[in-house]
Amino acid sequence: MSESLSVTDRTRVRRKPARGSHDRAVVHAILDEALVCHVAFASEHGPVVLPTTFVRVDDQIYIHGSPANHLLRAVGANVEACVAVTLVDALVLARTAFHHSMNYRSVVLFGRGATVEAHDIKARVLAALIEKLEPGRSAACRLPNPTELSATLVIAFPIAEASAKIRTGPPIADTPEDALLPHWSGIVPLRVVRGEPIAG
Amino acid sequence: MSESLSVTDRTRVRRKPARGSHDRAVVHAILDEALVCHVAFASEHGPVVLPTTFVRVDDQIYIHGSPANHLLRAVGANVEACVAVTLVDALVLARTAFHHSMNYRSVVLFGRGATVEAHDIKARVLAALIEKLEPGRSAACRLPNPTELSATLVIAFPIAEASAKIRTGPPIADTPEDALLPHWSGIVPLRVVRGEPIAG
Repeated sequence: MSESLSVTDRTRVRRKPARGSHDRAVVHAILDEALVCHVAFASEHGPVVLPTTFVRVDDQIYIHGSPANHLLRAVGANVEACVAVTLVDALVLARTAFHHSMNYRSVVLFGRGATVEAHDIKARVLAALIEKLEPGRSAACRLPNPTELSATLVIAFPIAEASAKIRTGPPIADTPEDALLPHWSGIVPLRVVRGEPIAG
Repeated sequence: MSESLSVTDRTRVRRKPARGSHDRAVVHAILDEALVCHVAFASEHGPVVLPTTFVRVDDQIYIHGSPANHLLRAVGANVEACVAVTLVDALVLARTAFHHSMNYRSVVLFGRGATVEAHDIKARVLAALIEKLEPGRSAACRLPNPTELSATLVIAFPIAEASAKIRTGPPIADTPEDALLPHWSGIVPLRVVRGEPIAG
């Protein structure tokens, strides 16, 4: 049986708790499929959220970029941050506008980022990210040299205070009358596909 | 010529400013293509970011949900929030791990949410959202009745303090040596496709 993350006040799923999960394997699977996360932090001008790519390795997620990157500098300073990862699986078209929805899988993670200094960990994390983009790719490019590793800021977030939320299945109808409305209802699956590679 | 949004300290694109845009038409096009936004706000426990669907109508974006929704209650109270919208267009596979990247189009918007009370505006916004999911759909379902409009909290954010950031094109190589490495380089286009609708 898969292990459960402990639930805190921040990760208890309050709205539609039946859609929530704290199962570590469920959280990991969503993190492993998504290419982009959105990281929120408090700035002197109010909350900021920015997108960035990321990779999970064991029980951490890692983001990276230039040492001049505003987001990385902000969240690498051991301050509270929040990271959201969202996959959209389908449009849910109900007979009533009110019950239109989406099928999705999302993770929200709270924690403090920590700057990764060790070159061996940075190298491992960056190779894992390349592998996530394209399996086998880390053996099909020149890996980072020490100068490049020094020029890459890597921030780790623990996957500790995290929850998943998932909607699946068909639309719902509140009343027998709505269920009999003469409109089509169902779902339209969405998926991300890779096109033909373009050399250049 | 397209109009430019005014630039503030929060929306000046500091990193790689050549990728930035404050062109209103560019910002609107990204907002109109994306199905999901990520909204950040300050909570008593620190920053929070949550995903939700949204629609642009004129110079506002609108999010909606149950009056019990934590996100909506938090950002509807005229507090500072930040909204990010991200489209991933391609994987960028360089000859060096260091220059792997993604082609993307993103918008970051700062502002204060305002609760929309008027039923006619709520109805118009919710119909626009349904149309965004599937053109023609607002005429192919039962539109919200007054009870449903009352049971839907709608929050507006102005598209005023906003910027877009865009990466396009092939990978880059820093040095003549890297450009001669024997690895494939190029981009792998990504796109979201709709599968066959599933009735239910």
